[in-house]
Amino acid sequence: MTYPIALCSYARDHWLPAGEGAQLVSAIDGSTVALMPDAADSAAMLQHAREVGGPALRAMTFQERGKMLRALADALTARKEELYALSALTGATRSDSAFDIEGGIGTLFVYSSKAKSLPDARVMLDGGREAISKGDFIGQHILAPLRGLAIHINAYNFPVWGMLEKLAPTLLAGMPAIIKPATVGAYLTEAAFRIMVECGALPAGAVQLLLGSAGDLLDQLDGQDSVAFTGSAATANQLKARPNIVGQTVRFSAEQDSLNAAILGPDISPDAPEFDLYVREVAREMTQKAGQKCTAIRRALVPASLIDQVQDALVTRLGKIGAGDPRIDGTRLGALAGLAQREDVIANLSTLRGEAELVTGGVIPELGGDLDKGAFFAATLLRCNDPGTARAVHAVEAFGPVATLMPYDDADEAIALANAGEGSLALSIFSHDAAEICALVGGVSSFHGRIMIVDRDNAEFATGHGAALPHLQHGGPGRAGGGAELGGVIGMMPYLQRSAIQASDRILAAIGGM
Amino acid sequence: MTYPIALCSYARDHWLPAGEGAQLVSAIDGSTVALMPDAADSAAMLQHAREVGGPALRAMTFQERGKMLRALADALTARKEELYALSALTGATRSDSAFDIEGGIGTLFVYSSKAKSLPDARVMLDGGREAISKGDFIGQHILAPLRGLAIHINAYNFPVWGMLEKLAPTLLAGMPAIIKPATVGAYLTEAAFRIMVECGALPAGAVQLLLGSAGDLLDQLDGQDSVAFTGSAATANQLKARPNIVGQTVRFSAEQDSLNAAILGPDISPDAPEFDLYVREVAREMTQKAGQKCTAIRRALVPASLIDQVQDALVTRLGKIGAGDPRIDGTRLGALAGLAQREDVIANLSTLRGEAELVTGGVIPELGGDLDKGAFFAATLLRCNDPGTARAVHAVEAFGPVATLMPYDDADEAIALANAGEGSLALSIFSHDAAEICALVGGVSSFHGRIMIVDRDNAEFATGHGAALPHLQHGGPGRAGGGAELGGVIGMMPYLQRSAIQASDRILAAIGGM
Repeated sequence: MTYPIALCSYARDHWLPAGEGAQLVSAIDGSTVALMPDAADSAAMLQHAREVGGPALRAMTFQERGKMLRALADALTARKEELYALSALTGATRSDSAFDIEGGIGTLFVYSSKAKSLPDARVMLDGGREAISKGDFIGQHILAPLRGLAIHINAYNFPVWGMLEKLAPTLLAGMPAIIKPATVGAYLTEAAFRIMVECGALPAGAVQLLLGSAGDLLDQLDGQDSVAFTGSAATANQLKARPNIVGQTVRFSAEQDSLNAAILGPDISPDAPEFDLYVREVAREMTQKAGQKCTAIRRALVPASLIDQVQDALVTRLGKIGAGDPRIDGTRLGALAGLAQREDVIANLSTLRGEAELVTGGVIPELGGDLDKGAFFAATLLRCNDPGTARAVHAVEAFGPVATLMPYDDADEAIALANAGEGSLALSIFSHDAAEICALVGGVSSFHGRIMIVDRDNAEFATGHGAALPHLQHGGPGRAGGGAELGGVIGMMPYLQRSAIQASDRILAAIGGM
Repeated sequence: MTYPIALCSYARDHWLPAGEGAQLVSAIDGSTVALMPDAADSAAMLQHAREVGGPALRAMTFQERGKMLRALADALTARKEELYALSALTGATRSDSAFDIEGGIGTLFVYSSKAKSLPDARVMLDGGREAISKGDFIGQHILAPLRGLAIHINAYNFPVWGMLEKLAPTLLAGMPAIIKPATVGAYLTEAAFRIMVECGALPAGAVQLLLGSAGDLLDQLDGQDSVAFTGSAATANQLKARPNIVGQTVRFSAEQDSLNAAILGPDISPDAPEFDLYVREVAREMTQKAGQKCTAIRRALVPASLIDQVQDALVTRLGKIGAGDPRIDGTRLGALAGLAQREDVIANLSTLRGEAELVTGGVIPELGGDLDKGAFFAATLLRCNDPGTARAVHAVEAFGPVATLMPYDDADEAIALANAGEGSLALSIFSHDAAEICALVGGVSSFHGRIMIVDRDNAEFATGHGAALPHLQHGGPGRAGGGAELGGVIGMMPYLQRSAIQASDRILAAIGGM
């Protein structure tokens, strides 16, 4: 690969002229990796999705679309080393890159597999028949794709997974997509997108790639379109309230800020296996992807009687995680996505320190790399001794290797603190006591989109607090945006319309086979 | 009953001081029926719902809450004649009143019945288990009530059903509600609400009634609250975009404007039974509830070759439907909800006449009643000969006994015209040909929340184009607001949060029994 790469948008089934615009730089050494292209004509892209991509995808059955996803997954697998090479430039370690690349490909595989149990038809039945009369006049809900297009607005932290976790349910549902990646790391998204286009599995118009400004894209949408957004709450709120989004009832699904919590159960003593499992998980979540996961643990809630011991164990563990240039052997905490992102982390850390003391980190680490040009940052643990009155520790997301340790006195307080995040994507509970677990789950479930419960017996199988699985809902209420991605059919719902059909058995049978 | 009735809000389990404010007048003769009370303290009501009503309802199981709905239905049934007496003053015929009163009570009965198949637990499993590891670490989605409250903002056209169709799924889900009825007809809503409170089946704080201005109610909500709105798109769009609704990710479900269509199939000849069934249905939909149904047929799409015959048959049929004072024998088309509502209908009719010619109606009828004080209006049929270029006939809802007849040339044009409404609540197809029906359904389903298909064989069992059934989704995309009420569990979703649980079998079993 020769750098800089001249990136291209992909519109109307063609690559647009290559980029000579803004420079995208390596997160590790500031060298120029890629050049952004000029803005594309979004109106033409919308028209193409509506007139070409939508009809082509709707002509396929759910099962046929599932096979298409399988072909995309196979193509990406065959060429994944190209993606790993680019991913390193985003600051990611090999392990971080796997989370993004293999995680994304795995999402395609799982959706492809789930499609085998969907109908070999263009309409999906939803639930059973409803007896609405005494005769041959029956109710049946069906699901069918919207007749517009999906706009995917992705975040910078997962250039591959972020694209594929939205694309898999969208294509399986039968909607074409225009993908607008974050500018930071767009070269990795473009490379993965290119592999999919080149494999030939996609019908014309099914996907388009829009690099750079989206212009007035959202103002051209209507009620048959669907926007899926991942990013900050501030941006999401601006977009959601746009007059055209509101006025046209454009579907808008957001996955935004989330101050995810991990609770060490009230039943756990320092010598219980769950104690160590908890410390490992918090340390891993803080450092994996340099903490740039929307699902990462930001708040570690522990019994007050154990907070000093947890703190000591965490400091010891974090001390063994070398931070710096991911190309150097032994580096387990890579770089942030860029210097601007590091500035954001430092600013938010400063806010958090108004309520919490710094335990370790908070500095640019000295292990390898050009510290002025590489976006390195040390694993940073804070401690807030009065989390019941604190506000920022539950609200300000320092999007890096940063977490805050907090004590709680009893289960009710643990619940109140977990919920003080006002809605999150993921929460974990480390406990072995079913009654304690049920009390916690009963108190927190409506605030958290996913809840992982780990103990000594299942830890070896646990998939990790921060791992959004294609089988399970990814999204949470309130601050987390209220969306629901992934989770099989759940994740397809933003792209499907439910209709209640009232008809005779003869007609329902015909519709089910459409 | 002595008029005027001094209406009361119901807050914190007490009736507030009686009204001496704005006068609510009879739709039939302008006499004063009721007086509105002063504004209530909404902050105290919110606090009570959160601190008293929510915990009480969440302590009950789904099955227990189902039994509570049954008790409400029984209490309303026992005293329903009180409601019929008040309903007549809203302009409704006895048959119209039944649609509102019995329809509302029936919704409680059906939800109560559906609860028998829900868990006798406080958490509902959602879908099956997901194999997310090779060991005892399993995925399972659960549904549990939000921990805030529901705000129900209701429209004036169904004072009883409108309250109950939102309340049944809300209470069954386990959320307390603050009900804000439309001011017009609020005396009927208050009477039905009073019967429910007096029957003693509801726990403290479960329901409150807010008459008059809601003040800054919506600005006090957060991500654990849920707003369900029925009314105009203009109002819905204002409310949805409020900074607090957007910023707190407050759930907001809207059921708003809808230009519902009924299609006479391309396969139908004038002597086919479906021809007559279609004419009857259009006439019934135009005149039932004086056309004040969000689901009423507004656009009658017929094969161009049949439009004159359909028009003649409709004019004949409408001519037999006496319009006027519903207390007079033979009246089958009652009054609109008030003189202001009649002014709106007249104004919208004027807009429609820019694109469509008046076939019949458009006048204040001469059958009985005080025409200056009663909000009477004749059944009004328009005809638009060029619906492919027309805009208003697909967009302007004259909320009265008004519909527009439109020709189409082939199935593709019928689909395009049906979808030109940009999203609606209900569509009906009168056809006997399964292939034609499937072609139409395939083209229109993503635009329409409910599709009724009637033919010679099932007509005797058909529940009617405009009847929103508790078993089936009520709501549609785009112009119709994007909401989904009723339909069993579907209708409870605005009040439930889904969480994906990852845990051992032992823990999942304990959570399922919570």
